[in-house]
Amino acid sequence: MAPEAAIDLNSDLGESFGSWTMGDDAAMFPLVSSANIACGYHAGDGTTMLASCRRAVQHGVRVGAHVSYRDLAGFGRRAMEIEPAELAADVLYQLAALDGIARVAGTRVAYVKPHGALYNRIVHDRAQAAAVLGAVRAFDPSLPVLGLPGPAVLELAAEAGQPVRREAFVDRGYRPDGTLIPRGEAGALLSDLDQIAGRAVGFARSGRVDSLCVHGDTPGAVAMAALVRERLAAAGIAVRPFA
Amino acid sequence: MAPEAAIDLNSDLGESFGSWTMGDDAAMFPLVSSANIACGYHAGDGTTMLASCRRAVQHGVRVGAHVSYRDLAGFGRRAMEIEPAELAADVLYQLAALDGIARVAGTRVAYVKPHGALYNRIVHDRAQAAAVLGAVRAFDPSLPVLGLPGPAVLELAAEAGQPVRREAFVDRGYRPDGTLIPRGEAGALLSDLDQIAGRAVGFARSGRVDSLCVHGDTPGAVAMAALVRERLAAAGIAVRPFA
Amino acid sequence: MAPEAAIDLNSDLGESFGSWTMGDDAAMFPLVSSANIACGYHAGDGTTMLASCRRAVQHGVRVGAHVSYRDLAGFGRRAMEIEPAELAADVLYQLAALDGIARVAGTRVAYVKPHGALYNRIVHDRAQAAAVLGAVRAFDPSLPVLGLPGPAVLELAAEAGQPVRREAFVDRGYRPDGTLIPRGEAGALLSDLDQIAGRAVGFARSGRVDSLCVHGDTPGAVAMAALVRERLAAAGIAVRPFA
Amino acid sequence: MAPEAAIDLNSDLGESFGSWTMGDDAAMFPLVSSANIACGYHAGDGTTMLASCRRAVQHGVRVGAHVSYRDLAGFGRRAMEIEPAELAADVLYQLAALDGIARVAGTRVAYVKPHGALYNRIVHDRAQAAAVLGAVRAFDPSLPVLGLPGPAVLELAAEAGQPVRREAFVDRGYRPDGTLIPRGEAGALLSDLDQIAGRAVGFARSGRVDSLCVHGDTPGAVAMAALVRERLAAAGIAVRPFA
Repeated sequence: MAPEAAIDLNSDLGESFGSWTMGDDAAMFPLVSSANIACGYHAGDGTTMLASCRRAVQHGVRVGAHVSYRDLAGFGRRAMEIEPAELAADVLYQLAALDGIARVAGTRVAYVKPHGALYNRIVHDRAQAAAVLGAVRAFDPSLPVLGLPGPAVLELAAEAGQPVRREAFVDRGYRPDGTLIPRGEAGALLSDLDQIAGRAVGFARSGRVDSLCVHGDTPGAVAMAALVRERLAAAGIAVRPFA
Repeated sequence: MAPEAAIDLNSDLGESFGSWTMGDDAAMFPLVSSANIACGYHAGDGTTMLASCRRAVQHGVRVGAHVSYRDLAGFGRRAMEIEPAELAADVLYQLAALDGIARVAGTRVAYVKPHGALYNRIVHDRAQAAAVLGAVRAFDPSLPVLGLPGPAVLELAAEAGQPVRREAFVDRGYRPDGTLIPRGEAGALLSDLDQIAGRAVGFARSGRVDSLCVHGDTPGAVAMAALVRERLAAAGIAVRPFA
Repeated sequence: MAPEAAIDLNSDLGESFGSWTMGDDAAMFPLVSSANIACGYHAGDGTTMLASCRRAVQHGVRVGAHVSYRDLAGFGRRAMEIEPAELAADVLYQLAALDGIARVAGTRVAYVKPHGALYNRIVHDRAQAAAVLGAVRAFDPSLPVLGLPGPAVLELAAEAGQPVRREAFVDRGYRPDGTLIPRGEAGALLSDLDQIAGRAVGFARSGRVDSLCVHGDTPGAVAMAALVRERLAAAGIAVRPFA
Repeated sequence: MAPEAAIDLNSDLGESFGSWTMGDDAAMFPLVSSANIACGYHAGDGTTMLASCRRAVQHGVRVGAHVSYRDLAGFGRRAMEIEPAELAADVLYQLAALDGIARVAGTRVAYVKPHGALYNRIVHDRAQAAAVLGAVRAFDPSLPVLGLPGPAVLELAAEAGQPVRREAFVDRGYRPDGTLIPRGEAGALLSDLDQIAGRAVGFARSGRVDSLCVHGDTPGAVAMAALVRERLAAAGIAVRPFA
């Protein structure tokens, strides 16, 4: 019997802060297999993180550390020229905080996904990529890093034996070289739900990615994730965490 | 043969933040047996915490989580009316962050010491005391809380079976009921080094406290700690972590 | 001819922060005569403050400085034991920042309204009330303070000749002594829109308050404010800034 | 009679934050004619800013707004990819806050000096330079910007008619093109006090700069500033604010 086709579905959740809410986590958690939970640097705080980990446990969803530059006011979307040693310590701080909170909630951090500007930066910036990977490796050498693999992070991870998992965005346009079309340019954001769901199935079948990212904070996010899940099911593809 | 007399010596260290330095940690670490390390809420950041944990390992000093209200601008010295559930999550966040960083540095958090206004508040505030104890217990039921025991925290810890350790301040004046004379009142701060060192020996011999706190951030802090250590040695009292 | 009956309608606006949105400012600005704009301590940032001031100018709405304890994570809802001199400097900082931004947008700060925990605290805490009043007076002795007048703030303002304006909450229950029924107790929050709008007219006619506060951040806030405005109009009461 | 030779002497002061102290402001204020005062984004808070403005008034020193990226943890030394509109609003917020505080202390902000990474960035980044200049111009078109003039900021200021003042660092090495030798490279920091003081006199005589910057936060800062002042006096050059 052929192995069951399957793909991981991840989303950025737990991005509220204090009295401010972002996204509809209650609706999104039942739809995904992996939750990238903010660790207090671009969003999130102790209360939000604990509640998010408990929700993950309740829905059988895996917890990932969504680590970021220290930039609440900018939601981690502003690239920073930061010393690699400081970046590594900041990543470690966030990862450790979420892992301890996850443990109290009955789970553990299962992977690390850099957020926002840091996510894009380490595709090409070797010094910052090495800092992130070094922090993750120091914490747990078996912990995979989920991201948009680029030359810098791929080479460094391979050298160090650190696992890396590749994701695709179901609603973002790609250039031929595999990088994202920047927001603001034509084709950056797809809006046709049918097309998006079809792409999701295509990505899942391609075998070239380990996870599909569905956004949780846009209008229509829940409907999009639900449709992606439905089409994956119709195509005989299970939604479950990457190995 | 009689058991060796011994006492723990603790100090608030790792209280720098970003480009700002506080105290002379390089001089203090060799003098203490336990370091209360700030966790980013009243002081400290990833870089400072990692450096402090490494220093602790290097000097064979035990690491404690110096947890605080979220108040960098006020250094955690301003009491806050905070919901117990939020306080518990904040304590858990700090404790988890420092423990993960300590592990990377080759050690673990060995105890928790509330800082500043939170330290004083939980002597009498049952709701906040329960929140702190609950967070520590959820993280590790065997982790002792170091503090100035008061009715609230003592009763609650006893009920829950959570270990508590008592400390005395070598340079602070006490009221007959065991509470500190508030700063600003006569007798709040002792300045005679001879008297302070003598009191330290007395506290250690009394068997009524588990640890002595020496300040690390005042002028003369290093000289005071060195003299306390010298007098303890002369009195045949070893400096080592409480059990 | 009798003078036209009129009342001020104020609301807490500009309470977004970075990427997080709070309330429906676009819908609320056209309904009020005075906007209490957050100054960066409990909510708001440069971008939000500038946009809010521009909206105020566009709708002919007056700008008030909604000053707070420094507590973004707690939205300024947690009372703090802060030194009066520090509180005064913090109030001055917020007031000055908003006034300069308002000037660039074509208006000025017309009054000061303490926010959240600070609002409630200065009803009875003379030291903190004096700090707030002192900061406002140092900035501009003619600038009124809008709030829930209590013995502390009233006496102090009277002594100093600082103007104070009284407001009533259209949807909060009051105790016989004029203080608010605390949230969580029975009768704290009214939900019947008819009753609320009726009370608003009653408050306006009573002549005992200078302004009515309508909330901007609750579900149904816009509908409530619109109905209040409609009933005031039907009763022949104009909505316009207090003198 | 020939006009008296004179030069402005500026220093970065008011860079403490909460309980953390930086530099020896008490010793530096009497030595300078212009104080670049931190505005809460890389350092400083209401209390520090008010105290610094009062010190400036007491010593007859002029106040400048030392505006920065929002980055307390990094002391404003990490370049950020920030949207120009957000940067402009952040600069305006800081400038307005300090100006209002200065007014309460009996003075006004007399110029703006970008700090740290922002200072270096706008030498060549036209978008960020335009954002800074735009914010200053919106606040007060006559307020000069003090900095290391580069093509971006110079051209833009000239186009807009915004005054710019040039400064030189007495203890930093320059490249032939007028840019600073980056820290960490040979010749970046001069340490010979005699040479530094001699250069200061040379810069002052050259007529090519409007101000000399002396650091306030390094060991030996006070001695260096005092010697610079002494040599300027010996050379018949008065220390006074630029026009």
